[in-house]
Amino acid sequence: MGKQKKFLTCDGNQAASHVSYMFSEIAAIYPITPSSTMAEYVDEWAATGRKNIFGETVLVQEMQSEAGAAGALHGSLQAGALSTTYTASQGLLLMIPNMYKIAGELLPGVFHVSARTVASHSLSIFGDHSDVMACRQTGFAMLAEGSVQEVMDLAGIAHLAAIKARVPFLNFFDGFRTSHEMQKIERLDNEDLIPLIDQQALAEFRARAMNPDNPVIRGMAQNPDNFFQHKEACNRYFDAVPDIVAGYMNEITKITGREYKPFVYYGAKDADRVIIAMGSVTEAIRETIDYLNAQGEKVGMVAVHLYRPFSVKYLADVVPATVKRISVLDRTKEPGASGEPLYLDVVEAFAQSKYFAGMDKPVIVGGRYGLSSKDTTPAQILSVFENLSLPEPKNRFTIGIVDDLTFSSLPQKEEITLGDETLYEAKFYGLGADGTVGANKNSIKIIGDNTDKYSQAYFQYDSKKSGGFTCSHLRFGDNPIRSTYYVNTPNFVACHVQAYLRLYDVTRGLRENGTFLLNTIWNEEELAQHLPNKVKRYFAQKNITVYYINATDIASEIGLGNRTNTILQSAFFRITQVIPVDLAIEQMKKFIVKSYGSKGQSIVDKNNAAVDRGGEYKQLTVDKAWANLPDDEQETNNEPAHIAGLVRPINALAGDLLPVSAFKGMEDGTWLPGTSKFEKRGVAVSVPRWKSECCIQCNKCAYVCPHASIRPFVLDENEMKGVNFTTLEMKAPAAMKGMQFRIQVSV
Amino acid sequence: MGKQKKFLTCDGNQAASHVSYMFSEIAAIYPITPSSTMAEYVDEWAATGRKNIFGETVLVQEMQSEAGAAGALHGSLQAGALSTTYTASQGLLLMIPNMYKIAGELLPGVFHVSARTVASHSLSIFGDHSDVMACRQTGFAMLAEGSVQEVMDLAGIAHLAAIKARVPFLNFFDGFRTSHEMQKIERLDNEDLIPLIDQQALAEFRARAMNPDNPVIRGMAQNPDNFFQHKEACNRYFDAVPDIVAGYMNEITKITGREYKPFVYYGAKDADRVIIAMGSVTEAIRETIDYLNAQGEKVGMVAVHLYRPFSVKYLADVVPATVKRISVLDRTKEPGASGEPLYLDVVEAFAQSKYFAGMDKPVIVGGRYGLSSKDTTPAQILSVFENLSLPEPKNRFTIGIVDDLTFSSLPQKEEITLGDETLYEAKFYGLGADGTVGANKNSIKIIGDNTDKYSQAYFQYDSKKSGGFTCSHLRFGDNPIRSTYYVNTPNFVACHVQAYLRLYDVTRGLRENGTFLLNTIWNEEELAQHLPNKVKRYFAQKNITVYYINATDIASEIGLGNRTNTILQSAFFRITQVIPVDLAIEQMKKFIVKSYGSKGQSIVDKNNAAVDRGGEYKQLTVDKAWANLPDDEQETNNEPAHIAGLVRPINALAGDLLPVSAFKGMEDGTWLPGTSKFEKRGVAVSVPRWKSECCIQCNKCAYVCPHASIRPFVLDENEMKGVNFTTLEMKAPAAMKGMQFRIQVSV
Repeated sequence: MGKQKKFLTCDGNQAASHVSYMFSEIAAIYPITPSSTMAEYVDEWAATGRKNIFGETVLVQEMQSEAGAAGALHGSLQAGALSTTYTASQGLLLMIPNMYKIAGELLPGVFHVSARTVASHSLSIFGDHSDVMACRQTGFAMLAEGSVQEVMDLAGIAHLAAIKARVPFLNFFDGFRTSHEMQKIERLDNEDLIPLIDQQALAEFRARAMNPDNPVIRGMAQNPDNFFQHKEACNRYFDAVPDIVAGYMNEITKITGREYKPFVYYGAKDADRVIIAMGSVTEAIRETIDYLNAQGEKVGMVAVHLYRPFSVKYLADVVPATVKRISVLDRTKEPGASGEPLYLDVVEAFAQSKYFAGMDKPVIVGGRYGLSSKDTTPAQILSVFENLSLPEPKNRFTIGIVDDLTFSSLPQKEEITLGDETLYEAKFYGLGADGTVGANKNSIKIIGDNTDKYSQAYFQYDSKKSGGFTCSHLRFGDNPIRSTYYVNTPNFVACHVQAYLRLYDVTRGLRENGTFLLNTIWNEEELAQHLPNKVKRYFAQKNITVYYINATDIASEIGLGNRTNTILQSAFFRITQVIPVDLAIEQMKKFIVKSYGSKGQSIVDKNNAAVDRGGEYKQLTVDKAWANLPDDEQETNNEPAHIAGLVRPINALAGDLLPVSAFKGMEDGTWLPGTSKFEKRGVAVSVPRWKSECCIQCNKCAYVCPHASIRPFVLDENEMKGVNFTTLEMKAPAAMKGMQFRIQVSV
Repeated sequence: MGKQKKFLTCDGNQAASHVSYMFSEIAAIYPITPSSTMAEYVDEWAATGRKNIFGETVLVQEMQSEAGAAGALHGSLQAGALSTTYTASQGLLLMIPNMYKIAGELLPGVFHVSARTVASHSLSIFGDHSDVMACRQTGFAMLAEGSVQEVMDLAGIAHLAAIKARVPFLNFFDGFRTSHEMQKIERLDNEDLIPLIDQQALAEFRARAMNPDNPVIRGMAQNPDNFFQHKEACNRYFDAVPDIVAGYMNEITKITGREYKPFVYYGAKDADRVIIAMGSVTEAIRETIDYLNAQGEKVGMVAVHLYRPFSVKYLADVVPATVKRISVLDRTKEPGASGEPLYLDVVEAFAQSKYFAGMDKPVIVGGRYGLSSKDTTPAQILSVFENLSLPEPKNRFTIGIVDDLTFSSLPQKEEITLGDETLYEAKFYGLGADGTVGANKNSIKIIGDNTDKYSQAYFQYDSKKSGGFTCSHLRFGDNPIRSTYYVNTPNFVACHVQAYLRLYDVTRGLRENGTFLLNTIWNEEELAQHLPNKVKRYFAQKNITVYYINATDIASEIGLGNRTNTILQSAFFRITQVIPVDLAIEQMKKFIVKSYGSKGQSIVDKNNAAVDRGGEYKQLTVDKAWANLPDDEQETNNEPAHIAGLVRPINALAGDLLPVSAFKGMEDGTWLPGTSKFEKRGVAVSVPRWKSECCIQCNKCAYVCPHASIRPFVLDENEMKGVNFTTLEMKAPAAMKGMQFRIQVSV
């Protein structure tokens, strides 16, 4: 590494598309969450003329479904073009038939997959390995990464090894964790990877292309007499993959200084307990191993990078001879199987392989974790290691949930704070489409690009989109950040929505002596009066420094409507001083030009004003007496069990605490209708009012209200009896002459 | 079994549809080979008003693809209708996304699958388990059968258990073996199975139907906070399946007298070597076990019926405690896996389960067999047992092929003749669409329906359809027939196509003192002259009784064109006398009415005449001196290696003998074009001739010739120089006036 390091703050999708662009000639796409931005980046770069390694612009073709994308990919590979696609979940399932063909015909196609839950009892846009595991039998090689940096480092190997080995690759990383987690990482560019291409293999691939000058037949039908023999003829290509991948990993190690192998070991050299896992959980496991080994324990982990072909030789190379107990973690659930896929593979390896023949057989157990992006924390990993210390470790366990129906879950442990003393963690509660997430994306780039600090940002959404809940989880520190889970112990919390104080437990986990920033229309006196007792008590007990700002009014004054994001971003930089305030202001204004430049100078000016007015926060005096406040009185409602037991906790962001038994009776995905009426979010800072003096009875207000809160009514003589609200005489139609009209706004 | 047994001669597809009709209210279909006839039977029965168990006619709806069929099925299940589909291979792959939904929503759907190869390096319409294994992670329960009788007995359990367990079932059997093998079997009817329905579970299923009067929401989106818990809530439904299935198997055992369990053991109680397998191979294994144990060996087999959920408890129930070595056979190949699916499951069971904790761990190896309907014979099973006797049994082996590239194959052994002395085996070589297969289907029914004999027929096709090769394999005997492979040692061989004498080795395996019937236009003298030396030698050495008949001329005389099938069927019954000739004639005529009645009395009369003239065969005098004839001289051609090494053996029905290395260099499914010109099959008994005196130069003869053998030519003055064939003056167009016209027929 004589060269200067090049850094980039990006998410896993960007890292994958950055590298895959280099090696692609054709991208056949049909974007699906959470892979969409991969295809979008490649499309955008192609539109702006970025060149791949061969000096060409990638030809991007959007098809009419993922099945079409896979078919186009198959065809373009047979025509001799290096071809790539990006997909996930059901999209990947639609590609399965073509995957068998692409693998059977030894074509170097590459799929980049942000692994996502396959819909079963319900749909989920979030991440686990159920989609990629549905492809493990197709003949594709499978490569897995656990962090944004790993995606940058290894995604190219999928392309390089596909060319050299003539075996297609499915390269995957965790959807809605790695795919959407922003990290400051080292970048690889064309010139780093060009020397690794096997030019002869590439030339041979192109020479095999189907064209009229060199006609061959592919896609034959074969009969029972010779199909089987032909099918076995491919063995040596698959047998060669692990060595080819290992060779490329060695090259990448030389380039990056980061050690890669088909299986990477981390932890004590003489570990007695080892976890085997793949994907983003390996980062959280690394943190937990450091924590445990620092206390004198001897634990370790094997991170799986090359999952297919599954090379027991390379696995055996890294497993310490001292291991007594192994726990395999799978991020998928296959009902009816004796265990999940990686567990079955590991059991076979230790039970059957000559590579482990010499050693005492370790006890092996397997468990499920993190389905549908269930946050997987160091506390859960601690329980996995504790399970391994039991006389009879539990097999087929789950972590991260309480299974009080079939008792699969390991005991839950309290969350722990990991990371060194340079780590700074911040959390921002916002409203979907209020700009908080966008501002935080800029903030993490500002910090990443202007300091030596490593940075990470992850954005937690519900699926209610505009108006729903968002929480931005930011971390920065002097060392690469491996915390692949929510910020649970923030130094700083910003609550951009006053109503959240009562809806959610916004102070949860805020560290002692931490900082809290509230966007509120209340003044100091009103705050002291209206803040929930629970919040006040937390402030006093934990010695929190509390700031407040009326960004809502400021935004309105500037002419930004309800876009408070820039004001609050500015307040964050000023309060925390994570970088010098002047630099922060300069950079925020630079990003404003980038974000809003295309919308005109007026919008830029307004946002610049917002940066300047971000200093208008005040400090709230925290009364020490608050430390002893009792809980606020709870409203008790006679709500249906379904609402009280499920809808309320989920809406209050306490869904993670629901045990499995909460879903008893609705195992088949049944949900009861009519829940909206119990869900008054009350997050609006202003509500519409009917101005009867201006009303022309056009009813367009009702038409445009997305919540059906604004409704027109017509009242006849009988209905008018005893009313005490304003009405207007009906203007039309004739049949309604003499009746009264009113617009009713329900809030 | 106080009741009288009801017999039926049918194939596996008919057995499956017969039973599934009883339990279906809706069938959403998109027929695909080799499952097509299942959907067709159900469609036909529905059209003729057959009633299911509930007294209803099944509503059959053909969709626009298998994806549509699966979607319709999902919808109709949610609407409370018991719904079924029939599919295979790529069709099944298209259903995968909906399978996750149907399983996740605990809906009692049933798929009947005639398991077929998934296309990879090439397509195959034949059978293996690669399609069903691609669904093992979906949550469907999976039930497997190995014979037509088992399909009849167990297919209903898929429906019954789905209703009781609320878990959908994929019921499968081997495509193009069990699906198309005709057997005389015992039949189950509505009244046998009605008492087994869990009426309460059925009522509850119907009560859960989505309808406006009882609105619920299904198909929700869930977020990371609660998806995982909800997903684990279903565990107890899957946990309950094995006991439910075992309970129903017990009931079926009571009804049929045949013993069924989730895993069925067959063989020595104190076996030291055991095979674990599923599908039709279990029948051939049973035969081989009897053969070996009769010689004092101690071997056995576990036949898997319930593959998912995989219940180690039920497996452990049947494995003999004496077992030292186990060989797991999988009919699929998953490149990149450490082993195939059933092998991985068995390894896990013995390595990890408490049910095997007490026993000495047996050595376990796994192997592949029968991909794409590769015939799996007792000789191959012998090599599996021999492998288990080696000091270090080979793992990850193949059988039925010679793998001289990666050396996976076990040594091949000579075929053995199994079956008791009452077994009669016959083989009929025919031409695609010549009626041989249809006639043999009738023959097997005639024998099955009119005698106490068990019967079996299997029809071997290439995929060239009309004009291609067919071979009918018929067996009958006093005991149920378990030979799930080609007839290799026939008592009787009929060759319906004279040209096959030189093309194929038609006497291969014909038993000593056996019988041979040839359809030929040659007389005795010509036969003695033209028969290949190899054939003559075989006749003499093996003391074969040889008959010949000119069915071609007889059919022409009767007015049946080239439909020789009925004449030859009649000759078969007269020669072999497997049933009294009078009865055979009566029955053949009955089936003629059934087969051709709808085409008019004239066709029926002609076929009746064909039956009567089937006695016009003669016996050929076999000269004892033929026993010493040398081989015929071989024509040696300087053909390309591709033709000589691959195309010729495959066309000569010797493709089974090709080693894996024959496909080196074309592992990706590449084939060379231009093979047809080397493939003069020469099977036509008459060829077209140009009658220039009748020709009006319309060129329609060239237009209708499917082989492009009839081509029109125009010759100008220069081209006419020195020609010695007939030409006509061109009639049109004006520009060609004065030129000469000719139709050229290439044969």
